[in-house]
Amino acid sequence: MTIKEALQKLEQYEETSFALGHAMGILNYDGSTVAPKQSARVRALTQGELSRMSYELTTAPETVEMIETLKAHQNELDATLARKAEELYRDLDRMRKIPKELFVEYEKLCVESDAVWHEAKANNDYESFKPLLQKMFDMTKQLALCIEPDKDPYDTQLDQFERGLTAKTCEVFFDTLKKGIVPLLKKVIDSPYQVREPLLEGKFAIPVQREFSDFVMGVMGLDPERSIIGETEHPFTTDFSKYDVRITTHYHEDDLLSSMYSVIHEGGHALYELNIADDITMSCLGGGVSMGIHESQSRFYENIIGRSYEFCGIILPWLREHFPAELSGLTQDRLYRAVNVSSPSLIRTEADELTYCLHIMVRFELERMMFAGKITADDLPQEWNRLYKEYLGIDVPDNKRGVLQDSHWSFGAIGYFPSYAIGSAYGAQYLLEMNKSFNVAEAVSSGDLSPISGWFRERIWKYGRMYDPSDLFKKVCGEFRPEVYVKYLEDKFTKIYRL
Amino acid sequence: MTIKEALQKLEQYEETSFALGHAMGILNYDGSTVAPKQSARVRALTQGELSRMSYELTTAPETVEMIETLKAHQNELDATLARKAEELYRDLDRMRKIPKELFVEYEKLCVESDAVWHEAKANNDYESFKPLLQKMFDMTKQLALCIEPDKDPYDTQLDQFERGLTAKTCEVFFDTLKKGIVPLLKKVIDSPYQVREPLLEGKFAIPVQREFSDFVMGVMGLDPERSIIGETEHPFTTDFSKYDVRITTHYHEDDLLSSMYSVIHEGGHALYELNIADDITMSCLGGGVSMGIHESQSRFYENIIGRSYEFCGIILPWLREHFPAELSGLTQDRLYRAVNVSSPSLIRTEADELTYCLHIMVRFELERMMFAGKITADDLPQEWNRLYKEYLGIDVPDNKRGVLQDSHWSFGAIGYFPSYAIGSAYGAQYLLEMNKSFNVAEAVSSGDLSPISGWFRERIWKYGRMYDPSDLFKKVCGEFRPEVYVKYLEDKFTKIYRL
Repeated sequence: MTIKEALQKLEQYEETSFALGHAMGILNYDGSTVAPKQSARVRALTQGELSRMSYELTTAPETVEMIETLKAHQNELDATLARKAEELYRDLDRMRKIPKELFVEYEKLCVESDAVWHEAKANNDYESFKPLLQKMFDMTKQLALCIEPDKDPYDTQLDQFERGLTAKTCEVFFDTLKKGIVPLLKKVIDSPYQVREPLLEGKFAIPVQREFSDFVMGVMGLDPERSIIGETEHPFTTDFSKYDVRITTHYHEDDLLSSMYSVIHEGGHALYELNIADDITMSCLGGGVSMGIHESQSRFYENIIGRSYEFCGIILPWLREHFPAELSGLTQDRLYRAVNVSSPSLIRTEADELTYCLHIMVRFELERMMFAGKITADDLPQEWNRLYKEYLGIDVPDNKRGVLQDSHWSFGAIGYFPSYAIGSAYGAQYLLEMNKSFNVAEAVSSGDLSPISGWFRERIWKYGRMYDPSDLFKKVCGEFRPEVYVKYLEDKFTKIYRL
Repeated sequence: MTIKEALQKLEQYEETSFALGHAMGILNYDGSTVAPKQSARVRALTQGELSRMSYELTTAPETVEMIETLKAHQNELDATLARKAEELYRDLDRMRKIPKELFVEYEKLCVESDAVWHEAKANNDYESFKPLLQKMFDMTKQLALCIEPDKDPYDTQLDQFERGLTAKTCEVFFDTLKKGIVPLLKKVIDSPYQVREPLLEGKFAIPVQREFSDFVMGVMGLDPERSIIGETEHPFTTDFSKYDVRITTHYHEDDLLSSMYSVIHEGGHALYELNIADDITMSCLGGGVSMGIHESQSRFYENIIGRSYEFCGIILPWLREHFPAELSGLTQDRLYRAVNVSSPSLIRTEADELTYCLHIMVRFELERMMFAGKITADDLPQEWNRLYKEYLGIDVPDNKRGVLQDSHWSFGAIGYFPSYAIGSAYGAQYLLEMNKSFNVAEAVSSGDLSPISGWFRERIWKYGRMYDPSDLFKKVCGEFRPEVYVKYLEDKFTKIYRL
C-alpha cells in the first residue's frame, strides 16, 4: 500500500469508525435518559454487534495495512496526519491483543451491568449488582493483561484514562494532597466559624431549576444549537463531534445546588468538546485527550469558577428573581459561604472542594485491592464503609449512598477516578497561569466568561488529541506541582473559615 | 452451503441486521425528539455509513448464498423459517438491483431533507425545502425504476407500503369513498344541527396534557416498561423490538384534542408492535407487516374506539378532575359531539373521520402527477391549494398549513398516504367482525379495552410479517369491501348530524 492509498483508505476508515462510535454513543445516551426499562436487553445485543463491527473494522487486514503504512511513513506526514498514524497504531496495537469474543462479551457486559446498577441503586440492593460487578473487575483485569501482560494491570487501566499515569505516581500525588488536606480539614471542622444557610434548605420547583440550568449554560457560553441537557440518574457528558454535545443532570426539589454544580461540571466537559478544532472534530483526534485533562476542565469550571465569590454575583440576581419567596434574603456573601461549606460527606459528586479528593482516594484504594485480589465484590461494601470512616470520619448508612453511588464501575470505567483528583490539581496551575494573562476574578465579576474560554480554547480545547496529556499540560503550565493545588485550598479555606 | 450452515448463518445475519436497524432508528428518534439543531450534518454522515453497512451486509456473497440456499429449500423448512426465506429473498432481490452509491446517497438525502423540512415548516419557507423535495421525488422514482424497470414506478412505491396495492386499485377504492363521502359531507355541512364546543376552546396547561397522555396510554394498555412517549413536530411511532416501542406527540396549549388523538393514533401503532410474538420480535419477521395494516390499527383506535360515545365516557371523569376550571361543565354527550365535529379543514392529522380520506386523495393525486412528470416541486404548492379547494372547498392560507404540513415526503415516504385510507376502511370491517365475538361498545363502556386488544393480538398483531397484508386481512375479515366503511360513516354521521 502506498502512502497515497493509505491516506484515501484513512478517510473512509475514519467515517465508518466515527459512525459506529456515534451510534453506540447515542444508544447509550438514549438508554440513560429516556429509553423504557425493558429496552436494556435489546440494547445489549445491539451494542454487542456494533462493538464486534468496530473490532472487525479496526483489525481488518486492510485497516492494519493502512495503519502500518502510515506509521512507517510518519515522518513524511504533516503534524496532524503523523499524530493520527501514531494514535491509530496505538489503538490497533491494543485492540489486536484482545480476542474478539472477549471484547464483544465485555462490551455487552458494560451495557447489562449499567442497567442492573441503575436498578440496584434505586432499590439500595447491592446483592443484585454484586455478581456483575465482580465479573466487571475480573474481565477488566483480564483485558488489561491481554494488552500488557507484563505490567501491573491496574497501571494499564490508569493509563487508559490518563496516559502515563501509574499507581505509584498516584500514591505520591495523594500523599502530597493528604499532607495538606487532612490537617487543613481538621482546622476547618474545629473552626468556631461554621456556616449553615437555611435559605437553601427549602423546596425549589424543578421546572424553575430546569430554566436555571439553561441560564447557567448561557453564562458558560454553551452553544444551544450544538448542545443540550438531558436528565439521568448520574450526570455525564457525551459528544458526537463538536456539533452535538450532550450533558445530563439530575434534579432534586430539596437541593438547588446539586443540579447547578452538576450542570457547571458537565458544562466544563462540554466546552472542551464544543471547541475542538473544526478540522479534527470528526476524526480520531477529535475529542478530549484524556480524562485527567477533561476533568481538569469540568472541575475548574465547577470549583475555581463556579464556587468563586464573583460567580455567586452572576447567579444571585437570577436566583432572587426566580425564587422570590425562597431566596429574596440571599446575599452574595451568604451564597459564597454556602457553596463552600466544607464538611465530610457521603456523596462524591456533592462533596466540597476540600474533602473531594478524599472520596477519590477511597475509590483508588478499593480498585487496587480488587485488582490485587486482596478483596472481592463480597467485601466491597464493608471496605467502602471502613475507608469512608478512615478518610472522612463518617458512617455510611446504606449502599445506595455508599458503594452503589457512582456509575463508573458499572460501565467498566475502573481506573478512572484518579483523573478527577489529578484534574482538580491541574486546575490550580491553570489559574496561576491564566492570571498572568488577565485578572480571572475580574473577568468572572463582569459576567463575561469568554476570556476564560478563549484562554482554554487556544491552549487546550482546540488541540483535541494532538498531544499526550502530560505534554499538553507541560506546554500550558510547566511541571505538574500538586502543592499549588494544596496552596490554593489552604488560601481559600483559611479565608472562608477564618483560620 | 448446506441448510444447516445457512440456518446458522441466518442467526448471525439477523442479529447484525437488527443491530444496524436499531442504531439507525435510535439516531432518527433522537434526531426528531431531543438532538441539538446542528447535529443534523453529523447524523447524515452516520446514517449514510450505517446504510452502507446494511447494504453491504445484505448483498455480501455469503449472505446471498445463505438466502438463496434457504429459498431453494423453502419447502423443507417450518412455516416461520420458510417465511423468513421468502421475505429475505424479496428484500435481497430489491436491494441488489439498487447500486450501492445510489442507496447510500438516498439514505443521506432522507436525513438531510427531514432536517430541512423541520426548519422550512417552522418558518413557513417552502423555497428552502423545494430543491430537496424535488430531489427526493426524482431519486425515489429512480430507485423504483431500478427495482422494477418495467412497472409504473408509482405502483412500485405503493407496493412498498402495502404489498400488492396499485394506483388502479387506489382509484377504484377512492371512487367508492368519494361517492359515499362527498354527498354525505354536503348534507353534514348543510345540516342545521351544527356543533361548537366552547369549553374545548380554552387553554390547557401542557404539563397536565402530558399527564393526560400517560392516562390515555394506560387506558389503551400500553406497557410503560416497554413504551415511552416523546415530543416531536410531527407525531410518529418507531420500535426496536417489542421491548422498546416509542410514540411521539406534539402539545398545543390551545388544543387539547390534538395531542390526545395523536397519542391514541400512535398508541394503536404501538400496541401492534408491543404484541408481536416473542419468537419473531427481533427477527426479519418482527414488526407490523405493512403500513396499510399498521394504519388500520392506529385509525381503529383513534376513531372507531377513540371517537366513540363510550370512550368519551372513560376520559370525561379524568378531564373534569384535572381541568376543573375549564371542563367541569362538560358532559359525555357534549364531548362526543365535539370530537366528531365534521368540517372541511386544513390539517390532515386533525381531520375528522368523514373528511379525512379527502386529504389522502389530494396527496395521492399529487404524488401521481409528480411521478408522471406532469408537475414539479415548483408547482406543488399551487397544485396542493387547488386540490384542497376542489376536494374540501377551502382556501389554504400558507404552505405551513398546506404542502409543508406532513413529514412523509421529507423522509422519502412517497406512496405511503393511501395506506391511511385503506387502513381506515379496514377498520370498519374489523368492527363488524369483532362484534360477532363480543359487544365492542359494551367493552369500551366498561373501561377495560383488553377484549379488543386480545382480539387483535390473536388475529393480527402476534403474526408480525408472517403473512402478506392482503392475505392477513382476508383471514380476519374476508374480502375487502370499502362500502362497509362508507356505511359506517353514513350511520355515524347521520345520527350525529340528525340527517
